[in-house]
Amino acid sequence: MIVAMGALHHRYELEQLVVASYQAASGAGQAGIDTLYDQLTKVAGNRELGSSPGDVRRVVGNDLGPFPAPLALNVVPWAGSLKDDGWSSEELKVRNESRKILGLPDLKVSATCVRVPVVTTHSLSVHARFVQEVDADGAREVLRDAPGVLLFDNPAEGEFPTPADVVGTDPTWVGRVRKSLDDPYALELFVCGDNLRKGAALNTAQIAEVVAKEFTPTAS
Amino acid sequence: MIVAMGALHHRYELEQLVVASYQAASGAGQAGIDTLYDQLTKVAGNRELGSSPGDVRRVVGNDLGPFPAPLALNVVPWAGSLKDDGWSSEELKVRNESRKILGLPDLKVSATCVRVPVVTTHSLSVHARFVQEVDADGAREVLRDAPGVLLFDNPAEGEFPTPADVVGTDPTWVGRVRKSLDDPYALELFVCGDNLRKGAALNTAQIAEVVAKEFTPTAS
Repeated sequence: MIVAMGALHHRYELEQLVVASYQAASGAGQAGIDTLYDQLTKVAGNRELGSSPGDVRRVVGNDLGPFPAPLALNVVPWAGSLKDDGWSSEELKVRNESRKILGLPDLKVSATCVRVPVVTTHSLSVHARFVQEVDADGAREVLRDAPGVLLFDNPAEGEFPTPADVVGTDPTWVGRVRKSLDDPYALELFVCGDNLRKGAALNTAQIAEVVAKEFTPTAS
Repeated sequence: MIVAMGALHHRYELEQLVVASYQAASGAGQAGIDTLYDQLTKVAGNRELGSSPGDVRRVVGNDLGPFPAPLALNVVPWAGSLKDDGWSSEELKVRNESRKILGLPDLKVSATCVRVPVVTTHSLSVHARFVQEVDADGAREVLRDAPGVLLFDNPAEGEFPTPADVVGTDPTWVGRVRKSLDDPYALELFVCGDNLRKGAALNTAQIAEVVAKEFTPTAS
């Protein structure tokens, strides 16, 4: 997400992020991947599942792996460990790393991190508020030119990023770019990135380099 | 979501909602349910899936049912039909119905609607901003007392709503209640409701009654 946000910050001056995640099982390592595959095998073929309370839990059994609830046929609004005031460590990490990498120590960030039954590729729904007024076409132009970003945004042709298409690729894919209807300073976006590529150790240097080069605000 | 938001509005005066959805297959009817089960059968047991671009698409084939992309092992940031400026009909519906049911024609609403591989029960990550300063304990108290709402919010004990637990039940379940770290007027929440119960025709009268009774703002 940061790569795309950096490019937009350069143009519009980022002020606030509200983020909801759709995080893949592999974010919890090989145990996460194995758990999801095991659970999928247990639930597949049973067409009664997912309609009564607890039936997925019953079929999946106690083998929850690194997750606090079944992941197959479910979404789990928890990732990481419990911190103060009900926040999870993953949610605080989104805030801290966004601020650090963008060089915006006062950036307002609200994150809710949710695990979904996807093997690899994290997705984010992003509401981004800026100091400057935004427009969707201008934002798309910025994203089209941003290094490390692939703009994939034509819903009329079924073009928006999904993990099934993004996994195994390097860029941060961005789609569903919209200007907020009730706030001329805010954009809505949907962002996908392969979590085993972007964010992994090998890419840290590359990201730092891009950020240093590209993302200094132009505000004079 | 509206039931919980109405109760919080009564206490704090709602000003803005930023919502990201995790919508179940059954929101697209029986064809949606059948498509998800069919796709799950195809992907289950193949432990190589979900790591290379396009492999889920290849295995699922062209049978996408009512969805614009594979739903098994995926999330799809699209629900409904295409409206102006890149918005989907579902996203506009969240805005219009929130405003109408809460009686707040100027409520700021930003929604991104995403389909997830869950059979039944829609979930929402909600960032809610109010006129009055909020506190998490006060908000929990409001939600605990709200008719039609079940507060399930104790992450230390693994208590937060997930579709697997909520499906087949009547209330709107609310968990992950947090005060925003950078905005004393905003709360973060995670909300789940069985979409074949709440929101269905039979409940319209019940919701309208509750709204009329309970959700008139106290602001004097």
